[in-house]
Amino acid sequence: QQTDTVAKAPKWYDTFSIRGYAQLRYNRLLETNPELKNEQGDKSWGDNGGLFLRRIRLVFYGQISKRVYFYLQPDFATAGSSGNLNFGQLRDAYFDLGLDDKNEFRIRLGQSKIPYGFENMQSSQNRLPMDRADGTNSAFVNERDLGAFFYWAPKKIRARFDMLVKQGLKGSGDYGVFAFGLFNGQTANKPEANNQQHWVTRFTYPIAIGKQIVEASIQGYTGAYNVTESQTSKGVKVKADRNYLDQRVAASFILYPQPFGIQAEYNVGKGPTYNKATDSIEVKNLNGGYVTLSYLTKIKKQVLIPFARAHYYNGGKKHELDARAYDVKELEIGLEWQPVKQFELVCQYTMSSRRFEDHELQDNLQKGNLLRLQAQVNF
Amino acid sequence: QQTDTVAKAPKWYDTFSIRGYAQLRYNRLLETNPELKNEQGDKSWGDNGGLFLRRIRLVFYGQISKRVYFYLQPDFATAGSSGNLNFGQLRDAYFDLGLDDKNEFRIRLGQSKIPYGFENMQSSQNRLPMDRADGTNSAFVNERDLGAFFYWAPKKIRARFDMLVKQGLKGSGDYGVFAFGLFNGQTANKPEANNQQHWVTRFTYPIAIGKQIVEASIQGYTGAYNVTESQTSKGVKVKADRNYLDQRVAASFILYPQPFGIQAEYNVGKGPTYNKATDSIEVKNLNGGYVTLSYLTKIKKQVLIPFARAHYYNGGKKHELDARAYDVKELEIGLEWQPVKQFELVCQYTMSSRRFEDHELQDNLQKGNLLRLQAQVNF
Amino acid sequence: QQTDTVAKAPKWYDTFSIRGYAQLRYNRLLETNPELKNEQGDKSWGDNGGLFLRRIRLVFYGQISKRVYFYLQPDFATAGSSGNLNFGQLRDAYFDLGLDDKNEFRIRLGQSKIPYGFENMQSSQNRLPMDRADGTNSAFVNERDLGAFFYWAPKKIRARFDMLVKQGLKGSGDYGVFAFGLFNGQTANKPEANNQQHWVTRFTYPIAIGKQIVEASIQGYTGAYNVTESQTSKGVKVKADRNYLDQRVAASFILYPQPFGIQAEYNVGKGPTYNKATDSIEVKNLNGGYVTLSYLTKIKKQVLIPFARAHYYNGGKKHELDARAYDVKELEIGLEWQPVKQFELVCQYTMSSRRFEDHELQDNLQKGNLLRLQAQVNF
Repeated sequence: QQTDTVAKAPKWYDTFSIRGYAQLRYNRLLETNPELKNEQGDKSWGDNGGLFLRRIRLVFYGQISKRVYFYLQPDFATAGSSGNLNFGQLRDAYFDLGLDDKNEFRIRLGQSKIPYGFENMQSSQNRLPMDRADGTNSAFVNERDLGAFFYWAPKKIRARFDMLVKQGLKGSGDYGVFAFGLFNGQTANKPEANNQQHWVTRFTYPIAIGKQIVEASIQGYTGAYNVTESQTSKGVKVKADRNYLDQRVAASFILYPQPFGIQAEYNVGKGPTYNKATDSIEVKNLNGGYVTLSYLTKIKKQVLIPFARAHYYNGGKKHELDARAYDVKELEIGLEWQPVKQFELVCQYTMSSRRFEDHELQDNLQKGNLLRLQAQVNF
Repeated sequence: QQTDTVAKAPKWYDTFSIRGYAQLRYNRLLETNPELKNEQGDKSWGDNGGLFLRRIRLVFYGQISKRVYFYLQPDFATAGSSGNLNFGQLRDAYFDLGLDDKNEFRIRLGQSKIPYGFENMQSSQNRLPMDRADGTNSAFVNERDLGAFFYWAPKKIRARFDMLVKQGLKGSGDYGVFAFGLFNGQTANKPEANNQQHWVTRFTYPIAIGKQIVEASIQGYTGAYNVTESQTSKGVKVKADRNYLDQRVAASFILYPQPFGIQAEYNVGKGPTYNKATDSIEVKNLNGGYVTLSYLTKIKKQVLIPFARAHYYNGGKKHELDARAYDVKELEIGLEWQPVKQFELVCQYTMSSRRFEDHELQDNLQKGNLLRLQAQVNF
Repeated sequence: QQTDTVAKAPKWYDTFSIRGYAQLRYNRLLETNPELKNEQGDKSWGDNGGLFLRRIRLVFYGQISKRVYFYLQPDFATAGSSGNLNFGQLRDAYFDLGLDDKNEFRIRLGQSKIPYGFENMQSSQNRLPMDRADGTNSAFVNERDLGAFFYWAPKKIRARFDMLVKQGLKGSGDYGVFAFGLFNGQTANKPEANNQQHWVTRFTYPIAIGKQIVEASIQGYTGAYNVTESQTSKGVKVKADRNYLDQRVAASFILYPQPFGIQAEYNVGKGPTYNKATDSIEVKNLNGGYVTLSYLTKIKKQVLIPFARAHYYNGGKKHELDARAYDVKELEIGLEWQPVKQFELVCQYTMSSRRFEDHELQDNLQKGNLLRLQAQVNF
């Protein structure tokens, strides 16, 4: 007869960890144009905006066996239906399977950031400007999709990726030196809507030159994106099968801030875009990029990082209503202040020109300035 | 060249804590009128009601640095759309920033309870009657909003607030001796809907008189509440801009139960209210309050608290359909039994007269009695 | 005057535990019929299906006092409204109250699995085939409801139930040797919709015969299920009060895999079913069952379990649109591979014949084969 002979297990709290962060914002000070909005970046810009919880994140993660790592991240600042806010919804849910004992070769399965764009992969917990630049961020709403990815990076570079985040140098995390992946292509938390997978590939390398670290990357993806019925206004003309070519290539350059930092990216491609001349959604060219300059200083143990970013985007946003057409130019000047590592404050002044047009808003160029504030807690 | 020199961090589970509680209810025993309902208090009263999960709470919280405290509380008993229950949605998501080393002066940022009404601030984990009294609770559905608050309390009083909860004396928690705050004003988890902030202020003081502790408070708030389109029936007349004056003042008196307790509050004010005579929503006067009597006894280590509450409310509920008009009189007699601190049972008999009227239900006075049961687990 | 004399509490992380698991799937390889679908089992079968997160579970649980146990399990792979996926919603939220010091007699309160059907109670974390068999699983979508249950099992058998899960023998967990319960009857996360409770009872016993363990069970439930308005197509005829008889009895037989395993169940009953001849929902007979064969082997420390299951169901699914009528025959051959206990991979080939008919799809028999893949992480 059997008895319970299960070996003494380690304590659950030593097998994985929990952490998180929260962001609270206010965007209405010194606002010059209440019609200036930014749907993807922050829904609380402009008229009727108020205090706003932008991200409430809990992360459950750990290297639970020699070759198995997992990462689950729900967000509790997601809008549900009928104007109710702050529901819990997944951001990440993936696991990494090491193919070798050093996990230099890994397969990642699940919902995860697509390895496309340094700023996309960099956590919002670490990014200096409050929102990602439209040029590269328009690739994927929430930066994520459900897929299978292969990553390779030598041990030494994996340690460097890790250090670039832990030292406060605003790294992107470890998405490999080389990446290749297949994914559904409808972006995070959306069901697949056609029978084709997207694919993506990336090559990056962070080089140490004396005390400085410089990283350059090239990346691209392609696939067919389905503009589903719930994403289009009544009357807008669409392709019969609603599948549109969706492809981009991007180049990235980063000088990590020791103390002076540069982060620059540019991408070109094609994707579904609203055409007001024909009131239809068509595949059109798109391009855009940004340059962020920063200077990291410490006063006693407090960190201060003044920064400036200029960015530009001309193209569609496939995930917005009618694959809304955008023409964005924005200049931002700001300061991040971390009195302790558990708390930080960002203040930025944004000078913006945004044309965003769909079936309803056919002639909609909005220019204006606003002061933006963000308080963040890290735990 | 750089290496990973990050200092040895403390274990994650020593930096913050997790706890929670859950409430299961049944309201159909000895029910005399199945048409008697209570939308804000408990949606499972009356016809077709059954067993019901009222609250499923997880709390992530901790003093993560000398002057930074955070508190995240999702609830997993929130109704989603189309009759599906038990989704996860935020209740609290705030952080406290100490202005001095003793955190006597604090700024609270985020979604949190509004410092208005002792029973509103007292946790549902600790309250004796199963639902809050309509008079003061009608101020804010879910008691919360997104805002910035200033709290002040001397160290000795902060310890007293803490003790009043930990000793099982049913305290409200620490919302300061003096409070002042600005908040969106549309209540928790709702987007701001106009360009004005509400403000609130409160003064309270728990005085030790011999063995007894007595607390008296005064508090008030004002702002413009927007009755949005999704909150009104078709055909109901509303103000053009849908903004309504929303203001109240309240007085509170508490004698903590050692062993005999009194808790009493009363408030008056103005707010949007359905007027059936004109089929419109208008600003009308409101007033209401309650008295709760209790007696805390211990038999061995088990806690028994018989209680009675009488309450009254006449006014609108701004957050319900058509700012529904209420006229409530209720008497409740009950018993809370805690055999161990991890589990408690409440049984209360409710004698109720509730008039609640909107565009659809223009003449709706419901009287009746019911026996209510609640099982609660604390972990 | 009072001071804080609360006794030193144990650390929060020693009072309860957190664990979880995640399942990622792909069902499109070797697919012969894209119109073959399986709504209850896996929504990503067939046309436009892609990679799919089937379950993302976090469990908070523990024996928090001698006689109080709690178990909270949100899922983060739940579809919300308008095609958005991966919201957090409860699966379990219950607490067990021991009536004796050994907890041989227990009352369970809350949302929990109904003690009806071995495969229903067996965790999806442990089941070999990727989805439950339609025959017994059609009883309750998500296997759960909100109720009060009495369980009895002697200490020795409780230990055996525990061992059958912990040793990897794919046990059902401890739902008692004898069970009796009352529950709302509208299935998990749905509000009660009539004034009657369902009831259920079960008797099971796992007998040790030499090294082998054999378990036989009998179980049954009855109640009135309300087919609500949101569950029916316009035009379908229904009973005036929408309440339908819903009752079943089932027998189960399990030989635990040491190394050869058999798991077999069969049930008969009555329930609401779509009748295409009259375009109405009527109470009709239903019956169905399955046999699963398995062989558990270890190669070094890796576990390999080849398995096969044949199953059959003829009857309605009360929780689907129009109480959809089903006629299912399916044969599955698969392999579960656990290289480490934190990760497992299932590969199964499914040969299926599914007739599923409602108001819209009145003549819909779909036959076909598909290869199914699942990666699972356990933490």
